[in-house]
Amino acid sequence: MNEIAIFSGSAHPELAEEICSCLGVPLHPIRTKRFSNDCLEVQLQANCRQQDVFIIQPLSAPVQENLMELLLMLDAARGASASRITAVIPHFSYARSDKKDAPRISIGGRLVADLLVTAGANRVLTMTLHSPQVHGFFSVPVDQLHALNELADHFARYDLSRGVVVSPDLGNAKNAAVFAKRLNVPVAAGAKERVNDTQVRISALIGDVRNRDVIVLDDEISSGGSILELLQHLRAHGARSIRIATTHGIFAGSAVSRLAAEPDVLEIVCTNTVPIAREKRLPKLTVLSVAPAFAETMRRINSGDSVSALFADEQPTFRPAAASL
Amino acid sequence: MNEIAIFSGSAHPELAEEICSCLGVPLHPIRTKRFSNDCLEVQLQANCRQQDVFIIQPLSAPVQENLMELLLMLDAARGASASRITAVIPHFSYARSDKKDAPRISIGGRLVADLLVTAGANRVLTMTLHSPQVHGFFSVPVDQLHALNELADHFARYDLSRGVVVSPDLGNAKNAAVFAKRLNVPVAAGAKERVNDTQVRISALIGDVRNRDVIVLDDEISSGGSILELLQHLRAHGARSIRIATTHGIFAGSAVSRLAAEPDVLEIVCTNTVPIAREKRLPKLTVLSVAPAFAETMRRINSGDSVSALFADEQPTFRPAAASL
Amino acid sequence: MNEIAIFSGSAHPELAEEICSCLGVPLHPIRTKRFSNDCLEVQLQANCRQQDVFIIQPLSAPVQENLMELLLMLDAARGASASRITAVIPHFSYARSDKKDAPRISIGGRLVADLLVTAGANRVLTMTLHSPQVHGFFSVPVDQLHALNELADHFARYDLSRGVVVSPDLGNAKNAAVFAKRLNVPVAAGAKERVNDTQVRISALIGDVRNRDVIVLDDEISSGGSILELLQHLRAHGARSIRIATTHGIFAGSAVSRLAAEPDVLEIVCTNTVPIAREKRLPKLTVLSVAPAFAETMRRINSGDSVSALFADEQPTFRPAAASL
Amino acid sequence: MNEIAIFSGSAHPELAEEICSCLGVPLHPIRTKRFSNDCLEVQLQANCRQQDVFIIQPLSAPVQENLMELLLMLDAARGASASRITAVIPHFSYARSDKKDAPRISIGGRLVADLLVTAGANRVLTMTLHSPQVHGFFSVPVDQLHALNELADHFARYDLSRGVVVSPDLGNAKNAAVFAKRLNVPVAAGAKERVNDTQVRISALIGDVRNRDVIVLDDEISSGGSILELLQHLRAHGARSIRIATTHGIFAGSAVSRLAAEPDVLEIVCTNTVPIAREKRLPKLTVLSVAPAFAETMRRINSGDSVSALFADEQPTFRPAAASL
Amino acid sequence: MNEIAIFSGSAHPELAEEICSCLGVPLHPIRTKRFSNDCLEVQLQANCRQQDVFIIQPLSAPVQENLMELLLMLDAARGASASRITAVIPHFSYARSDKKDAPRISIGGRLVADLLVTAGANRVLTMTLHSPQVHGFFSVPVDQLHALNELADHFARYDLSRGVVVSPDLGNAKNAAVFAKRLNVPVAAGAKERVNDTQVRISALIGDVRNRDVIVLDDEISSGGSILELLQHLRAHGARSIRIATTHGIFAGSAVSRLAAEPDVLEIVCTNTVPIAREKRLPKLTVLSVAPAFAETMRRINSGDSVSALFADEQPTFRPAAASL
Amino acid sequence: MNEIAIFSGSAHPELAEEICSCLGVPLHPIRTKRFSNDCLEVQLQANCRQQDVFIIQPLSAPVQENLMELLLMLDAARGASASRITAVIPHFSYARSDKKDAPRISIGGRLVADLLVTAGANRVLTMTLHSPQVHGFFSVPVDQLHALNELADHFARYDLSRGVVVSPDLGNAKNAAVFAKRLNVPVAAGAKERVNDTQVRISALIGDVRNRDVIVLDDEISSGGSILELLQHLRAHGARSIRIATTHGIFAGSAVSRLAAEPDVLEIVCTNTVPIAREKRLPKLTVLSVAPAFAETMRRINSGDSVSALFADEQPTFRPAAASL
Repeated sequence: MNEIAIFSGSAHPELAEEICSCLGVPLHPIRTKRFSNDCLEVQLQANCRQQDVFIIQPLSAPVQENLMELLLMLDAARGASASRITAVIPHFSYARSDKKDAPRISIGGRLVADLLVTAGANRVLTMTLHSPQVHGFFSVPVDQLHALNELADHFARYDLSRGVVVSPDLGNAKNAAVFAKRLNVPVAAGAKERVNDTQVRISALIGDVRNRDVIVLDDEISSGGSILELLQHLRAHGARSIRIATTHGIFAGSAVSRLAAEPDVLEIVCTNTVPIAREKRLPKLTVLSVAPAFAETMRRINSGDSVSALFADEQPTFRPAAASL
Repeated sequence: MNEIAIFSGSAHPELAEEICSCLGVPLHPIRTKRFSNDCLEVQLQANCRQQDVFIIQPLSAPVQENLMELLLMLDAARGASASRITAVIPHFSYARSDKKDAPRISIGGRLVADLLVTAGANRVLTMTLHSPQVHGFFSVPVDQLHALNELADHFARYDLSRGVVVSPDLGNAKNAAVFAKRLNVPVAAGAKERVNDTQVRISALIGDVRNRDVIVLDDEISSGGSILELLQHLRAHGARSIRIATTHGIFAGSAVSRLAAEPDVLEIVCTNTVPIAREKRLPKLTVLSVAPAFAETMRRINSGDSVSALFADEQPTFRPAAASL
Repeated sequence: MNEIAIFSGSAHPELAEEICSCLGVPLHPIRTKRFSNDCLEVQLQANCRQQDVFIIQPLSAPVQENLMELLLMLDAARGASASRITAVIPHFSYARSDKKDAPRISIGGRLVADLLVTAGANRVLTMTLHSPQVHGFFSVPVDQLHALNELADHFARYDLSRGVVVSPDLGNAKNAAVFAKRLNVPVAAGAKERVNDTQVRISALIGDVRNRDVIVLDDEISSGGSILELLQHLRAHGARSIRIATTHGIFAGSAVSRLAAEPDVLEIVCTNTVPIAREKRLPKLTVLSVAPAFAETMRRINSGDSVSALFADEQPTFRPAAASL
Repeated sequence: MNEIAIFSGSAHPELAEEICSCLGVPLHPIRTKRFSNDCLEVQLQANCRQQDVFIIQPLSAPVQENLMELLLMLDAARGASASRITAVIPHFSYARSDKKDAPRISIGGRLVADLLVTAGANRVLTMTLHSPQVHGFFSVPVDQLHALNELADHFARYDLSRGVVVSPDLGNAKNAAVFAKRLNVPVAAGAKERVNDTQVRISALIGDVRNRDVIVLDDEISSGGSILELLQHLRAHGARSIRIATTHGIFAGSAVSRLAAEPDVLEIVCTNTVPIAREKRLPKLTVLSVAPAFAETMRRINSGDSVSALFADEQPTFRPAAASL
Repeated sequence: MNEIAIFSGSAHPELAEEICSCLGVPLHPIRTKRFSNDCLEVQLQANCRQQDVFIIQPLSAPVQENLMELLLMLDAARGASASRITAVIPHFSYARSDKKDAPRISIGGRLVADLLVTAGANRVLTMTLHSPQVHGFFSVPVDQLHALNELADHFARYDLSRGVVVSPDLGNAKNAAVFAKRLNVPVAAGAKERVNDTQVRISALIGDVRNRDVIVLDDEISSGGSILELLQHLRAHGARSIRIATTHGIFAGSAVSRLAAEPDVLEIVCTNTVPIAREKRLPKLTVLSVAPAFAETMRRINSGDSVSALFADEQPTFRPAAASL
Repeated sequence: MNEIAIFSGSAHPELAEEICSCLGVPLHPIRTKRFSNDCLEVQLQANCRQQDVFIIQPLSAPVQENLMELLLMLDAARGASASRITAVIPHFSYARSDKKDAPRISIGGRLVADLLVTAGANRVLTMTLHSPQVHGFFSVPVDQLHALNELADHFARYDLSRGVVVSPDLGNAKNAAVFAKRLNVPVAAGAKERVNDTQVRISALIGDVRNRDVIVLDDEISSGGSILELLQHLRAHGARSIRIATTHGIFAGSAVSRLAAEPDVLEIVCTNTVPIAREKRLPKLTVLSVAPAFAETMRRINSGDSVSALFADEQPTFRPAAASL
């Protein structure tokens, strides 16, 4: 395949720099200009002709700005005769709009998938989509990574003899089960009611957490509301300690400080799929890097090596933590 | 809008006849020919010019035959200058292929959605997709109905004072919760492990079924294996009586007779989204008709009346049957 | 044609209300929700089935937010079975990105045109594109209006016996010439050098403005920089009075107050294609409404009457104000 | 070009094995699963990334099953990032649906061509389409081979001094003429009336077959009806011996045994574009392999060598066997 | 359906006028301008909004000019918001490029079909395509008429008791057989060798013409070479009189005068699908009008009545004129 | 990238030969056939498989013939499995149809851009489009060259101490300014009124030409009318000598002889983007070759080197020739 050429939008240049550093290739510069009428223009500042172009941009806040910048970069790379263009979207936030749960709304995840292809994306590289079906929204090949390796490596340092992985939501239990299997601990889950985007209610906890060291696992933490509620249940059921793990650390508003303020929360672990502002980097927060995983995948995409061999997709089963149910 | 013209493929002409009867319009004949080399040819035997054409064909077994016949009919209607073509697919069976859970497989639900559009479908009318995200696989408008009204009407005849709706799978709990709400009974669910297509294991039952009259609800019953296993848990937890309800009564092989052979199963209720062979119509099996619902929706699609007003999509929450958890 | 159904995004509901009022039809409500991860969801809150849907949204600041909201609304209308969807974009700001004047940039106007079609726009209604070629970027029919009638009606109230229309830019001279013809006055123009988006330089003034009452005409006023420079030339050449007219009153930052602060500027006239914030509504600013023009065009689009008959496109010639050159 | 990766569907793995053997590359395994609801899932079990993928599947009976399996494989290869995907369809049976000879039917050959492209085929390799115009149904490049070389090599072993090639149908006379030229014998043809798919009638024989050793040539033999009728004419006109040759040996039902039962039919020769069941492999049947031809063509497609140089398309003329007409 | 609006390109305004006269609707004017750089511009000079637009243009010489004019008109109608656009192409001359009979040529018929759709054609109305498979080249609905009714009506005036229809080419025999059946006479055919576009050779005549009044039937007569050669065979076989009939009277160069110069040719009959120049209108030439057939079809397309009911497609068989073969 | 394969249509084989000579690669032959019905067929007579194919054809008169030939060649190359196809269109004459300046016309430049892509062009290489926005009409990458280097090299031989570059039209002033900067001379421009394609009127001359040696620069000279009128103004303003330079020397009709007949016109300089007929090659006419520029660009396109580095797009400003304005 042709030579790699990597560009980063404004959303998360630090991650892009780190990926390039892992790959030992330069991060090519861009120039983003905002006209006085608020329109954007982006210039890719390195030759793209017949290059294997990767454009790195998570759809983190400001989402609409970052999306449009990404679309402009994809179109620029196409017009500049790139041989192949991969949109590297570590956090595809519109994946949460994955169904028509009210009349006359757009299925935003499908729409954004179509916009990316219209703008010139030949393929997409992303991590942990909100639901696995969103993969099917794309008409181009998608490589979907997960961060369970990074998270498992982190927690392997602790004594997990009394550990348990807890998913706030039974819908997310599959990933929690995979994760628990790697840590060789049982799994539990909350039976969660989501009333709307900000209000959630957990009505039951399935599996035994009593006297156990809990690792709460969620795909993304945004407002943090459902985690906070889960904590009450964990306490009520006698959990011994609590750690929180997530792939996408959105942490909208004061989410991270509210979680860190809970005395029995020992640690909050997320990855750097989205940028974590300096003021959110509290002592209890650990940010793991997914840059090596993205770099290795991009190397394999470029060289034609198997990606599935790297991120083999285990088919776990949900195994509750206690036999007493 | 223009006049309605309705055709049915070979999969389920009885349903089509019943829909037409509800609408008071004729079911137009078709002629399906199989060449000696096994290729199919379908002729629509009524004028389609500027008609609002509906072609009714569930993707029931033999699925590939029925799919190809449907594609040929869609293309024929387009070539015959229909003004609009709606594929009416009461059971879209390929919706179960909704994610890439192994490397190098097709997401069959998305592929079939694209094939339908390639062949000429301008819109799709279907019922109870396996997962709501499958809606987003289509690039044309989709109206998705459900059969909860029909099922609720049926069960309303019983004394439900000790009733409980049980979902075999927590993933399907949302529909069970909606259904329970209509019947004004609590809900319970199995925590289900699906090893592969035919083997399932239920490891826990969430919610109280003791001394209760259970209505098991699932979107489709195919091999029936997971229902049979659920029955063991229901008995172990002291259920008083068991009825089974489903939208899509696939009943592959001896599924229906094996279910009916269980003495404590009082009744099996399904709809006619797929044809139920005569030999499967055992005394314990009740088949409800979705023809009136499809007919009314098609009338609204044709006249431009709101369909969502008819099948308002409630946003239920999962409310376990017992507080003791 | 079918019944009209009009929706407005968040960019400029006042204009939409006024258009609906002219047409005597209701403006249907929408609900825009911002998730905690900054993604948007828009619900159209009235039946769209087989309606002739118009969605009104100028691409004014915040441009990216307004664009994404528009795309979501178009997609929602398509999914809701609208019979035809017209994107009404009174100010298509991305039209300024109309050429590849640097390597490896996107031609943003073409990209946004393609995005609108991908999202579901069947046609576009807009006003005064930055260059007429931008019409050719769209693969769907476009109706392009202009505001010269409204502006001419406004200035007809003045004594124009010593009037002259001045275009800041020779590239825009055509519209100035049309406008001058309507007012029956001569035309002049600046020979403008645009260094970049905010810096401009005018090096010459073609045509005689001495002792004349100048009406400066520009398609859009954004930073106002080029107008301010033109004023110096007008003064140097002995203009008697100055009025400023424009279609799109962007007025970024303090543009309008800086213009109004010039003592010899008697009046600034713009239209309401974009919202004009309350604090910009200085005494010297007159805002003309284009709502009647949009309303009448939408009526004609809906009923199939000729639009070109309404906005006949004169083919003017540039006629300098003085023969002495 | 990139490395070759070859897969075979379920239709004809023997041919695929033989092609791979000629090329000296492995035939990669697949796994086809049938769900209990009769839907198919196919997994390609070797890395496809940036490979030059060939998927071999004739559209032989069961046609609809084989077509759907092929479509799923094409889609899987696309999703798995193949650099190029060639559908190798030795027998494209839907080519017989090549015109709209009745109102409101699909032109099935065009539809299937479009379905293949929708599913991901970048190019098609096939042999002897029923009519040459079917090539124009595809929107992707097609390489069409023929088996006249293989057939000619076979018959060259006989004494052809009294030979004549007879086409059952004047429409197929062109290929018969090419074939006769290679064997250096004259050509004759039946004037055939085809009433429908199974009933044919031959009303005249053009050219002299008296005392000649006849080689009947047809592109496909399905029900065999028209060949049987031709035999009567050949006998009536005094043919000395009869051999039958065809590219696509469909042999529906008892076709091959009925032909072999005719005492004056010395031999039936076909190729292996479709699988020939063991019970049809009667002593009189000779099956020639097209695997070397497909292998060499695939090698050239992969390496970019000319294919037309290999299968130069002669432009023969119809030259009747006798001058006396 | 909406109101009809009919335009004609420069190729054949007389036919368009006649069609409009049959329909009782005006032929709307166009203005075709040729720039000094030889580019064309076409203006449709009547409102197209929501009209059912028909654009009439046979692809007669100069073919490339007429094709480009047609494409410009289709695009103009689309941009002018026509509700539906039908390209009425009485003679689709590129249909002769229907197969890839040499390497590295375009299948011109498919290419032009795609160009028409790109330019905006929603449907096509044509007459007597060179081969029926060309219908499948179009991705939009096609209505294909034939002129056998008109021709049969004309010849019905003669004493046909000794008549015979002769096709110059066995490939065209099907239409000749249909025609013969209408006239209740037998059919004969030449076995034709076409070396290239201008040179043909007929090597045999199938069927008996001795002492018969011959009607030669061909779909198009261009250079006339093959007809001239057929005449020699007809004379050699003792034909009593000869008349020539064709749908598309191309008559390139001196074709018509050379045919008319043959003393035993009593009459040459064609239709007006292409314009016949004044100098070609020799006394022996009869031009039948297809305007009524096109007008009635356009009326039915507009009103949604069945077209196939009008031009029912008989399935004839080839029945040679003599039993002695 | 793959090997280069270059073909030329009939429009300008001399230029193609010269480009190939610069590149040191053969110009592959084609065979263009005109059928007796005036349809074209083109055969590419060299293997295209996996080649990097370039097809050279300016859209010069006869424009429609040359366009159709180009479309047929593009389609042939696609069908012949070219790996990439670049349409090399030195003069894209339809660029002058770049806006909808009358109702119900096509924007021909956009239409032709779409036709080229439909026929198979993967990219376009052209020179000096009439307006820079036309670049945005293409949905494939475009490389746009200019001939200012060639023209500047030519004029550098003269004493330019009293030189001035004059643009006939202020709309073209940008290129004139770039050109003047290279020659280090001032620039002037006519204020041009174009009534229609053949009639123009220049009403003013901006900048000082008195006693100066004028180089008139225009992008294309077709009828020459506007140049002739400019000459009158130049004389009236006291120009000392006049030379005329243009990229595209269309010279319709007697344009070149009329210009050369003007005694004070010392020289007419154009390039060979379009063929210049022998009879137009008057002594005053100098034809510069753009073949080296095209060759070098094609080399870079093939090898993936930057093209913008070669033809860096300066951003000039319009600097009038005199300070006195």
